[in-house]
Amino acid sequence: MAQKSQLDFRFSDLRIDPESPLPKQRQIYAALREAILDGKLNPNDVLPSTRELAGELGVSRNTVLAAYELLLAEGYIAGRGGAGTYVAQNTARPPASLPPERIEPRPLSSTAEVMRVEQLPDSWESPSVARPFRPSSPAFDAFPFTTWARIVTHHSRGQGRFSVADGDTHGQLPLRRAITEHLRAARSCHCEPDQVFVTSGSQLALFLCSMLLIDKDDAVWTEEPGFPDAHRTFRARTTRVIPVPVDSSGIDIEAGKALSPQPRVIYVTPTNQWPLGIVMPIQRRLALLQFAAERKAWIVEDDYAGDLRYDGKAYSTLQGLDEADRVIHLGTFSTTMLPGLRLGYILVPPDLVDAFAAARRIIDRYPNTLAQAGLTDFIERGFYHRHIRAMQQLYYERHQLLQSRIVSKLGGILEARPASAGTFTVANLASGIDDVALAKGLHARGIDSLPLSQTYAGAPALHGLLLGHAVAPPEAIRAGIDGIERFFSTWGFAPMNAAKKSARAT
Amino acid sequence: MAQKSQLDFRFSDLRIDPESPLPKQRQIYAALREAILDGKLNPNDVLPSTRELAGELGVSRNTVLAAYELLLAEGYIAGRGGAGTYVAQNTARPPASLPPERIEPRPLSSTAEVMRVEQLPDSWESPSVARPFRPSSPAFDAFPFTTWARIVTHHSRGQGRFSVADGDTHGQLPLRRAITEHLRAARSCHCEPDQVFVTSGSQLALFLCSMLLIDKDDAVWTEEPGFPDAHRTFRARTTRVIPVPVDSSGIDIEAGKALSPQPRVIYVTPTNQWPLGIVMPIQRRLALLQFAAERKAWIVEDDYAGDLRYDGKAYSTLQGLDEADRVIHLGTFSTTMLPGLRLGYILVPPDLVDAFAAARRIIDRYPNTLAQAGLTDFIERGFYHRHIRAMQQLYYERHQLLQSRIVSKLGGILEARPASAGTFTVANLASGIDDVALAKGLHARGIDSLPLSQTYAGAPALHGLLLGHAVAPPEAIRAGIDGIERFFSTWGFAPMNAAKKSARAT
Repeated sequence: MAQKSQLDFRFSDLRIDPESPLPKQRQIYAALREAILDGKLNPNDVLPSTRELAGELGVSRNTVLAAYELLLAEGYIAGRGGAGTYVAQNTARPPASLPPERIEPRPLSSTAEVMRVEQLPDSWESPSVARPFRPSSPAFDAFPFTTWARIVTHHSRGQGRFSVADGDTHGQLPLRRAITEHLRAARSCHCEPDQVFVTSGSQLALFLCSMLLIDKDDAVWTEEPGFPDAHRTFRARTTRVIPVPVDSSGIDIEAGKALSPQPRVIYVTPTNQWPLGIVMPIQRRLALLQFAAERKAWIVEDDYAGDLRYDGKAYSTLQGLDEADRVIHLGTFSTTMLPGLRLGYILVPPDLVDAFAAARRIIDRYPNTLAQAGLTDFIERGFYHRHIRAMQQLYYERHQLLQSRIVSKLGGILEARPASAGTFTVANLASGIDDVALAKGLHARGIDSLPLSQTYAGAPALHGLLLGHAVAPPEAIRAGIDGIERFFSTWGFAPMNAAKKSARAT
Repeated sequence: MAQKSQLDFRFSDLRIDPESPLPKQRQIYAALREAILDGKLNPNDVLPSTRELAGELGVSRNTVLAAYELLLAEGYIAGRGGAGTYVAQNTARPPASLPPERIEPRPLSSTAEVMRVEQLPDSWESPSVARPFRPSSPAFDAFPFTTWARIVTHHSRGQGRFSVADGDTHGQLPLRRAITEHLRAARSCHCEPDQVFVTSGSQLALFLCSMLLIDKDDAVWTEEPGFPDAHRTFRARTTRVIPVPVDSSGIDIEAGKALSPQPRVIYVTPTNQWPLGIVMPIQRRLALLQFAAERKAWIVEDDYAGDLRYDGKAYSTLQGLDEADRVIHLGTFSTTMLPGLRLGYILVPPDLVDAFAAARRIIDRYPNTLAQAGLTDFIERGFYHRHIRAMQQLYYERHQLLQSRIVSKLGGILEARPASAGTFTVANLASGIDDVALAKGLHARGIDSLPLSQTYAGAPALHGLLLGHAVAPPEAIRAGIDGIERFFSTWGFAPMNAAKKSARAT
């Protein structure tokens, strides 16, 4: 690409639109991000100081700071210590993506010989959700049931007709509008309500992808380690599910190419890699989009924790960066609201809308309308945002407590990784301990977890436990960690040198 | 089979069990039915008079009469006018069915080239459900919303934990128990809760069958005319969906054999053939079960209107007659409760339970738990039975009104068939009228219907309209028929000789 002069972009031309639904910091963020992606701001170009730009725009310095912090976290800009902030390397969109090609969805029919739908071991399927430390459960104790019940009661009386009657295969339009607005404003998605389908959790979204995007002989990249349900869902449809190692930027494209150069689907969790919590930086995102456009692969972006970040960073999505219509974006209300709602969404490129609608029609038509009506109201009346903000704080606190209890009680055995989003903490195990046996033993004592080794499709590089901190109130966290400590002592080995570990890990 | 003497069964040995959950009339019915099926009562054996048997058993004569009437309706017995009641021909189970063979479920993977999920024309997908005469909608105006809201409110407060938390892939156990008890008591099914899955309406049940029972090259028999959603769902999975003509006893097995001798799945609606309302007599049922056992075919029994019979006859199911584990039985709460609930069930043979559970896990896990909890309470507290009894009466009245309005306003153009169950009336059209054009024209004027010709997969033998009477209060029925009359007059032809037709049809 030709080197462009900094004159392509003038900071003084930046404008805040008071009519925009976007907060000011998001507007500044979006304008700078676009300038960088478009190559109007080039690598090493220096940004004005937050004080300067705040003065220029007539906003508070904190507003500019928040925009810079998100750009920094996403990898668009870097800080040079004393010398200010500058545009990072490899942040411009590659020139002229290939024109999007219409790819036919895949058929449901089949000739293969073996049913490959697999079952998980019973112990990880326990419905006793309120136990510590079930990894994907939200805080049932902190859900605003009174408000929710008031809304649901209204709709269950049949007063909103759409709560009882036949529904829309895409999901109810008001809910799709609310989801679209949220994704645009908070996550920089490009979408219209017609591209959104309300699904039964993210599982149905994954299933739709497995039905419509791949065929028997198609390759699918999944993350290694990664989300077992995604792996399993794709494996029901193709034998060629390829676990691709995750490095410090997320899925390792070069490693993937070496394993399987022509994936049809690439399943990723770029906002908070499942389970390791890695945020994919802009450089890797652009490379992944470029690769997908070149190979005509679909990217399935699972945003399972997008609304549950503790660090206040509303990272933009791959979907919002995608100019070649290769990204299918999905999310769930199971962890932000309640899993029993069975609500989630999938946002598909326009070319795929008809195929998804037709498939939805023969699978289950549409989700429970009372739940849809209730959630729509809950979002529109501001309760959803209030709730997720509260949960971000609460889950952060529970994560911190869990971490500190692990340090003080289980130092030397378990080491908790810091988490910035979601419902669970990953705790690495000292080598030589079988995490599956450990999880089974704990399960029998009323403590749920998921063995980290089971998040690997191949040989596990790490052993440990996924411990859900969201579901557990403080007393349950303390009791749960005490329970793990007791369990270890019955196994005959106590935490080694807990105090020393403690000092390092906090 | 060797002729057995009547001494194999002694009416005086018939016993009423006061502890049984079954009503007395159902106990008498079940005992006689078993004796006939087992060949203990043989063709032409004479039954005692209702008065005699009532005296013998110490029950009222009406109790015995109800049992005899159901046996008569199902074809087990026949009446000889003055000479009493006797056992009908071909009512004994064939000797020793072949031992059930474990058949592997089918894979989801695929190699076919074309996506065959089809879309219906928009006009039959209107979500404006309260309009006359949407065929499959229940009476929204008669649903006990106050009771329902009270139950739902309780659960939405999170007081019953199972309404908010993670659920059971089979569906919540209390609901499966309630469904099992109902199917055993009212429909003579043989089942345990473990064989039941709670689905999202009957559509997901059909989809599960299409995913797990058939493969790309397998043949499926459907009824002709028949339920388009079933046809379409199977067609997404195999090119070999064979519409088999329906005769006065239901699906014509000999015709089916001639078209496709080795079906893998036979989809039938034996309790009330969709859309013609034919009840399959016992002779055809036994022949169908025998054929399925011989050919190792699965029978998918769709009991879509089982709880909505106006004639008070709780017909037994194919599932309850099946001794070879060939029958998959499914039903829906969309018409007995509300379609927006998205609840139904599927009852599968024990050998298929694991495969269905694994598939459910990767499709959508489980249905909304608030709806499940509400329905469980609604059934357990007797509201469901009260509601369906009320709807049986109401739908009968609405059907009668619709019929009489058609006779008086549209005689000579439309002729309504008497219905004994379900939510809609089939009205045949005078020849030469294109029912699709008619339905489209009416739709544009706010009147919904389904063209009868569209219930044929092949060349339609009948033209007409499926008109939903359940959804329409009396004033809407009158207005709707008036609207159809006006529509015909704008077309330029008026009903011919309405009065004469009227006299014949009522």
